[in-house]
Amino acid sequence: MDNDAKKTALRGISYGLYVIGTKTEGGINAFTANWVTQTSFAPPLVAIGAKKGTASANEIHNQGVFSVSVLESGQKDLAFAFFKPVSVEGDKLGGYEYATHTTGCPVFTDALSWFECKVVHEYDGGDHVVYLGEVIDAGIHREGKPMTLAETGLFYGG
Amino acid sequence: MDNDAKKTALRGISYGLYVIGTKTEGGINAFTANWVTQTSFAPPLVAIGAKKGTASANEIHNQGVFSVSVLESGQKDLAFAFFKPVSVEGDKLGGYEYATHTTGCPVFTDALSWFECKVVHEYDGGDHVVYLGEVIDAGIHREGKPMTLAETGLFYGG
Repeated sequence: MDNDAKKTALRGISYGLYVIGTKTEGGINAFTANWVTQTSFAPPLVAIGAKKGTASANEIHNQGVFSVSVLESGQKDLAFAFFKPVSVEGDKLGGYEYATHTTGCPVFTDALSWFECKVVHEYDGGDHVVYLGEVIDAGIHREGKPMTLAETGLFYGG
Repeated sequence: MDNDAKKTALRGISYGLYVIGTKTEGGINAFTANWVTQTSFAPPLVAIGAKKGTASANEIHNQGVFSVSVLESGQKDLAFAFFKPVSVEGDKLGGYEYATHTTGCPVFTDALSWFECKVVHEYDGGDHVVYLGEVIDAGIHREGKPMTLAETGLFYGG
């Protein structure tokens, strides 16, 4: 296989950019991710990829839940805030206001919308763990155009 | 759960649009899909969703391989051709010229690029089967901006 071709072809996959919220033993956490796709309507299932061995991946494995905040086009600041480790200060996580609903995972007030998942399956055969979650709660903050990875100029794939 | 909120939030996930090529017993087939994401760099893994019970899903299950052709922005004709059952006529499938490489699954000459996968895992707990494939071959036809589902005005999610 031509590795350059593999990298370029895989970078042809289009993505959005999301903040994944997790629950920890006694706390919460969040990270930015683009490897997200729905995989079933009934039940509503969503697959995400989380880097193996990270706190976030372990939290999803241990707690069996995660949330997804759908960002709006232009919200680079919110997306980029969760590329690094973050902490809770008052009513904010990583500097952004959040709420919790059914699972206890944080969803961001500034996001367009959110949904929460209960993990129904996981596959850890790669350097990221694939978590398949059933959507068990969801909410809308406002209408808007979702953020794409392409608009950030970044790649995470290849 | 508020079903309208669930639908709207899930439609906030951003997608590209791809033609998935399959191999059959003695033939080839293809279908258009948007539920595609990379899930690992090493090994390079990609997850796709294929509607359970369809010829395409059964072919991937039986043959253990699939291909992904990455379409270019504007190639609605190519994308829409594979929403319905197609057949081979001469050197064309569904009216579009194709080639085969490592797996025998068709990749389209008009696409920007392609990659082929060997199935390493599947999960059939929903109305679509999730196939996780390891990328084993890839090629580039030309540079260009990949097609997004958003540009078609269609949704497949929610």
